[in-house]
Parts: sequence; C-alpha cells; structure tokens
Amino acid sequence: MKCEIISVGTELLVGDTLNTNAQYLSRELSLLGIRVLYHTTVGDNPKRLEDVMKIALGRSDLIITTGGLGPTQDDLTKEVIANLFGKKLVQDEKVKEDLLQYFVNREFVMTDNNLKQTFVPEDAVVLTNPKGTAPGVMIREQGKTVILLPGPPREMTGMFEGSVLKLLNKEKNQLVVSRYYNISDIGESAAEDRLLDLIDVQDNPTIATYAKMGEVLIRITANGKDEKEISTLLDEYETIMIQRFGENIFAFSKDSLAEAVGKLLIEKNVTIATAESCTGGLIASQLTEQPGISKVFGLGIVSYSNEAKQTVLNVSRETLETFGAVSEETAREMCDNLRNISNADVSVAVTGIAGPDGGSAEKPVGLVYIGLNVKGNTEITECHFKGDRKIVQQKTANKVFHLIRKSIVDKVE
Amino acid sequence: MKCEIISVGTELLVGDTLNTNAQYLSRELSLLGIRVLYHTTVGDNPKRLEDVMKIALGRSDLIITTGGLGPTQDDLTKEVIANLFGKKLVQDEKVKEDLLQYFVNREFVMTDNNLKQTFVPEDAVVLTNPKGTAPGVMIREQGKTVILLPGPPREMTGMFEGSVLKLLNKEKNQLVVSRYYNISDIGESAAEDRLLDLIDVQDNPTIATYAKMGEVLIRITANGKDEKEISTLLDEYETIMIQRFGENIFAFSKDSLAEAVGKLLIEKNVTIATAESCTGGLIASQLTEQPGISKVFGLGIVSYSNEAKQTVLNVSRETLETFGAVSEETAREMCDNLRNISNADVSVAVTGIAGPDGGSAEKPVGLVYIGLNVKGNTEITECHFKGDRKIVQQKTANKVFHLIRKSIVDKVE
Repeated sequence: MKCEIISVGTELLVGDTLNTNAQYLSRELSLLGIRVLYHTTVGDNPKRLEDVMKIALGRSDLIITTGGLGPTQDDLTKEVIANLFGKKLVQDEKVKEDLLQYFVNREFVMTDNNLKQTFVPEDAVVLTNPKGTAPGVMIREQGKTVILLPGPPREMTGMFEGSVLKLLNKEKNQLVVSRYYNISDIGESAAEDRLLDLIDVQDNPTIATYAKMGEVLIRITANGKDEKEISTLLDEYETIMIQRFGENIFAFSKDSLAEAVGKLLIEKNVTIATAESCTGGLIASQLTEQPGISKVFGLGIVSYSNEAKQTVLNVSRETLETFGAVSEETAREMCDNLRNISNADVSVAVTGIAGPDGGSAEKPVGLVYIGLNVKGNTEITECHFKGDRKIVQQKTANKVFHLIRKSIVDKVE
Repeated sequence: MKCEIISVGTELLVGDTLNTNAQYLSRELSLLGIRVLYHTTVGDNPKRLEDVMKIALGRSDLIITTGGLGPTQDDLTKEVIANLFGKKLVQDEKVKEDLLQYFVNREFVMTDNNLKQTFVPEDAVVLTNPKGTAPGVMIREQGKTVILLPGPPREMTGMFEGSVLKLLNKEKNQLVVSRYYNISDIGESAAEDRLLDLIDVQDNPTIATYAKMGEVLIRITANGKDEKEISTLLDEYETIMIQRFGENIFAFSKDSLAEAVGKLLIEKNVTIATAESCTGGLIASQLTEQPGISKVFGLGIVSYSNEAKQTVLNVSRETLETFGAVSEETAREMCDNLRNISNADVSVAVTGIAGPDGGSAEKPVGLVYIGLNVKGNTEITECHFKGDRKIVQQKTANKVFHLIRKSIVDKVE
C-alpha cells in the first residue's frame, strides 16, 4: 500500500510552524508496514489543495491529510475533498450533539462558525476528536482511502491512536500491540547503540526510540493474529530490555520522569518537600501535575533571592556571603533547613545559574548544586549542564527526579 | 515568484528525521517576499524524484531541493536533475581542490566515493559548502531557477546564508513584513469573528490567527516595494487591531502571556511574590523562565498542605477550619500574609481544586480563588474553570498573569 501524507496550512509554508505531524504519521505508518512515499504541504487554498489531491490520487492508495478541518473560513479540506469525489456535505447529528456538549462543558459561548464542523461528506466514516471539536473523516472511493485528520498535533495524535490505528489494522487483518520503556540518564545514541543488533534485523517486533530532554522512550511494537501470539513476542523483548537497561528504566509506560516519580512517591507514601532557586518552581510544578500528590507533597519554597533564602529557609547570611548563593554550602543549608521546616521524608534543594546572565569563570552558567536529604542525611550533587536557560532548568529538574527515584528504589530494594 | 521546496531523503519518509529544513527555508524565503506554495518530500529514488521535479517545474518558478548531494550511492539529486535538463555532469577543478584540502586539513583519509561530489551539471553555478564537502548547485533553464542544497541542516543553512541569500536578493522585487498581536481572554473563533470583514477581503495585508491555551496570536503580513509603503499599510491595520481588541492585546509580539508579564514587571520594576496551592509552583515556574526576573521576583511559596499554609504563610487554623482551604478567606489571608513576608509590590495567592479528586457539590473541581494584593490592597477573584487537572492549572496561571498585567497597566495608564 503506497501512502502519501498531505499537510494543509499556510502557517507551514511561511515557516511559522514545524511540520511534526508528517514525521509522527510517517513513523507510525512505517511501523505498521505501510510505505510512505510522499509528503506534500499546501496552503489554505482550495484550487491548489484540489490539484495536490488529484496528483496524490494518481500515485498513492492511502492519503492522509492533516489540517483545515476547523471552524474558520480558511479551513477547507473537507469541502475540497467532498467536491472532488462529487459528495455533498451533510450535517451529522452525533457530531452536532458532541460539539454543543463540548461548549456546555467548558462554559464557552459557541459562535456560529463552529457549526461548520458538524458537516461531513455523505457516506464518510466520522472519526471522533478526543482532544478538540473538529471531527476527522475517512472516505473510501475508487479503490483509494482518504483520511482527514485535524492539524493541531494533540488532536491529530489523539485521533490517530484512538481511531485510525484500529481502522488501518482491520484493513490489514492483524492486531498490533506496543509496549513502552522509558529510561533516564542515558542518551538516545547510547540507548540505540545498545539496541543496534535488534534494530538491524527488526521485522516483528519493531523498535523505535524517541528522545526528550533527559528521557529516552523505547517502543516495542509487535503484530500478529491474536493477543497470545503478540504477548509471547513482547515478553521475549521485555526480558531483553530489562537485561540491557536495568534500573535506568523508570517507567514501563509513556509516563514522563516527573509522572513516574510522582506516582512512586504516592505509592510508597514517601513525603517530599522542595526548595528551588534556579528552577523557580519547575520541580514543584511538575510534581503537582500528578493527581493525588497532595498525599505526599505539602510544601515547596521558591527562594529566588538571597533575602528569601535567609527569611524563609533560614540560610545564614555568613554562608551566603562566604560561599555565595550558588555553592555546595548554601545547597546543604537550604536542604537541611527545609527538612527541619517540612519534616518530609525526602527534602530536595537546588541552587544554580540558569543563565543567560549571572555566570563567571569560576561559576559558569549551567553550574547547579542539588541537595537531597533522605531521612536526615543530606548528599550534594554538583552538576554542569549545557544549553539555554530553559534547558538548564529542565535538565536540573530531571536530574532531581532521577536522584529522588534512585533514593527510593535503592531504599526499598 | 512561486516557490517549491523539495526535500529528498528516505529518512524523512520513515519518520526518522524531522524536516526542519523546509521550515527554515520557508521562513527565510517568506521574509524575502518569495511565496512558498508547496513542500514536497520524496525518498532516495530516481524515478520518483524525477516525477516530483517534473510536477514542480510545471507549477513553480523557483525550486529549492535539500538532500541527496553527498558521496554515497543513494545521493542522486544532481544526477536526476542534470538528466532532466539534458546536461552532462562535469568535474569542477575548484571543487576537487577544495575537497582534497578539506580532507588534508582534517587529517582524514578520503575514500574514492567522495570524488562523486566534484561533478556538477555543466553551466551550473557552484555554491560552496562552508560546513561540509558536498557543493550546492544553481541551474537556470527554461525560465526556471533550480537550487540544490545539501541535506544536513548545518550545511544547508551555511550555504543558504553564505551564497543563496545573495543570489535571491538580486532577484527580489519586494519586501515582506509581519506584525504580531497576542491577545488573552478571547477564544480563537470569537477573535476571528471580530476580524471576519477583513479576512473576507484580505489581499495585502493578510491576516492569520493561531490559538494556544488562553492566547490567540494574530499575524498581519504586508508586502510592498519599500519599508515606508509597508509601514503605512501595517499602521492602518494596527489602529484597527487596537480598536477591536484594546486591552486584550497583551503583547505586540509573539511573546506568551507569562513572558509578556515577566518583561512588564522587569521593565516597570514592579516586585512580585507568589503563594500557590492548586497551581503547585506553575506560576513561579513560568515567571522564572524569563531571563532577568531575579530583579523583581524573590520569593514563591507552594503551600500545598494546610500545615504549610499555617507554618510558612501564617494562615490561621481558625480560617482553615471555618471556611476551608479553598475559600475567599484563605486566599485573602495567604495573600495578605505573603505581602507582609515578602514586602513585594504585587503579591498573588491562589487556592483551588485542580481535580480530578477533592471536589464536592458546594466546591466543585475547577473552583479557584485568586488573591491579588497591589501595594497593600487585596482583591479576590473567584473563578470556575473547566477541563482536566493540567488545564485548570494552566488556566489559573493565565488568569493570574492576566490580572497582574491589568493591575500594572491600569496603574500606569
């Protein structure tokens, strides 16, 4: 099956938006054994969209479009494709009901242009949008399959995972199941190196790696006629993953490091407190994205200024003056004193230079001290991170989560 | 001049590589006033590459390709295009010399396949590669301009900035300038509704809207022969934008709400402190993404538990017991006491229920109290947000930023 991905949106052609959708779909389709031979991007222009659709229908069997399904005037993908196949747009009652409910739930006033989204080409399969208002559409005509997905990546991936994957698998008469392994403290190239022998001969299962800052997600995907056949294949690979990555695996899921640590703290009932300088609340903020975290997290302090470090965290003026705010000694006092204030099982304190200003030859941008107190005993980790302000902040947070996780896992095992 | 970007490489079609080249070129070309109408991606396959080149020559005046210029067997772009124009590949002595020198300089041994890179189509303009070995090529034939650039982003951008920009500048006959207006507290459809009359007749300038959570970015783009002509057009639209969106415009740029507020605080030298319950540090964290914020931000407290509210923020036990942690009274005490601890010009406190648990009929998930103290005077805003935990947290943060901004702008104007 030859496939083409058509991305619709002038924002892509003027360079405002990076086309991550085409990459996501290419990878997903490749893992399903579908050959993607072309990507095409075209603006919100009906004539040019029609032209590229005609070219695509001439050379591809499966065409997946993204973008142009929303409520505004320049959202034209459905209209152009319905017209091309000589189909009318008809209002779908279920879609209309969902749309009205969407606005009721959010207490938004619905403007009339939103109703445009309730019209779909006649005889088309409607794909629900779990993350937004614009439904997707699948049309089969003249031996071709055309699937229309929304442009915003969250909505597009939500619809792909929720509906399209099933439809494509049905067509191939097979089941596909993926398992995920999320690892920290190993780079993507290094992780891939450890998998090279498997990647080189991959067929079923297939292996894909996705790198985020400080995390590498490994996905193992197997296909087969039934669940048992697939489980056998995946179990074999799970053993290999554990052998090769061991305690670097922080989640057997797509959970981020912050999520995994949040869940672990709740599960083990380990209380935690945070004192942040250069991360400015990022660690507390990412921890508290986790539902139920209030069971173990009570207090975070963002002691950005020296005054706040003295007033709220009781760091001595002498320490700040002798060693500076970014020093092992300040990190230690922040951590020890936080432990006394909070009485938490784990207290963590960070102080560092996120940049772009504030660095010196002796204490450059990226220097961060992390204090970790576990049941009264404080250990300091000195880190040197590269990157801009946001990257230094996120790398610091990830290192903290890695250290917290390690301390709990080591204690428990 | 209609332009098409053709990206060559199977790694793009299987999703291994994100196509950042197409975005970079689109942006650069748009700024030169060149309209990019299509992106096409094709694999390292001579027949399909030839087909997409033929389609491009039929609809575009300027075609820029990236990829397929290297030394390996599957690098075929030069060969396919020379063949299409009926041109021979001839060895370029200067390119050969540079290539040999490249390897001498790096003390690498040159393998023979590298010599493939010294052959270029006859009569073509050779573009030197400041960051690698494969030269680029420009061909003008039959009223069309075809520019072949290497695939690795460093090499591609180096060649674009070093050679292509100059060549295109000679040809350009107009300038293009965009202005941005970022607005809060209005949805995308509602914003577009207010612009519909302009969008319907748009030609020059053009209008585009981009929605993020709680923010809508409006871009106005004009073209003309010189800066003055463009400024006149854009000034006229700026007046309209201010009339229609007024104080909802929080940035005359692409800045996010948090960035705009961070910059405003620094610019006006207004000091700020935060006390967060349900947002868990998100407000402090987004503020401290802003470089230089330490000038105005000293202290943030994440008082997640009742104990922390009492110990660190001195909220009275009576208030917590009588009215509950999520109440106007608690928000007021958090805010007042934070003001006393921090002595900041603006103190902000939030307490609410982010969910999914913890809600009741009387105090449902999404109920948030925001306290804002400006120079001693505290005002409470009661909010009811819909959405999941993360959305409630982000909406709360955005509302806080909106209120902070309003208080500063109102005070100043």
